Amino acid sequence: MEPENIFESIPDNLTEEVFELIVQSSTVKIERIVSRGHCSPESGWYDQDKNEWIVVMKGEAIICFEDNKKVNLKSGSHLNIPAHLKHRVKWTDPDVETIWLTVHY
Amino acid sequence: MEPENIFESIPDNLTEEVFELIVQSSTVKIERIVSRGHCSPESGWYDQDKNEWIVVMKGEAIICFEDNKKVNLKSGSHLNIPAHLKHRVKWTDPDVETIWLTVHY
Repeated sequence: MEPENIFESIPDNLTEEVFELIVQSSTVKIERIVSRGHCSPESGWYDQDKNEWIVVMKGEAIICFEDNKKVNLKSGSHLNIPAHLKHRVKWTDPDVETIWLTVHY
Repeated sequence: MEPENIFESIPDNLTEEVFELIVQSSTVKIERIVSRGHCSPESGWYDQDKNEWIVVMKGEAIICFEDNKKVNLKSGSHLNIPAHLKHRVKWTDPDVETIWLTVHY
């Protein structure tokens, strides 16, 4: 059993935000997301059937919600986003990778 | 909605390892664990009904398994431990806090 490292094996091509599956079960999905200057989704909002817990491992980001509330996130920031709470990633640092972990449950 | 930070609000008293609940649903439990020099459990093995995915946010640790295999973990290391795979935390850095995130699912 060899551990992997969340800060390693960063994709060379970050033209698009990169989503990588870490754990998938019938009840939970854990992903790594690597962003560099991306916003997402490109238009509209995430409106998800599952709850999502996120933690920023590295970098900086701003998430905004439908009521225009903005949340600034930096290394170590974590946030629980209930299902169907509409949100989007408004900004990620364009100069370094922002590495996120997300747990969909 | 205010984010919290995984690196902040470290308990002053680390005589015992500190487990803090972050998310609890019917299917998933996310915890922060703060260790400083602790091994756990103090005797025997963890033998858990649920799968557990762990990531070390800060610090260093060694986990060992019943077959004596040892895994060294540092910041960013992550590992998926299937249910009932007996394991224990053999060592954590005594000089700094080791901050873990665990997802039981």
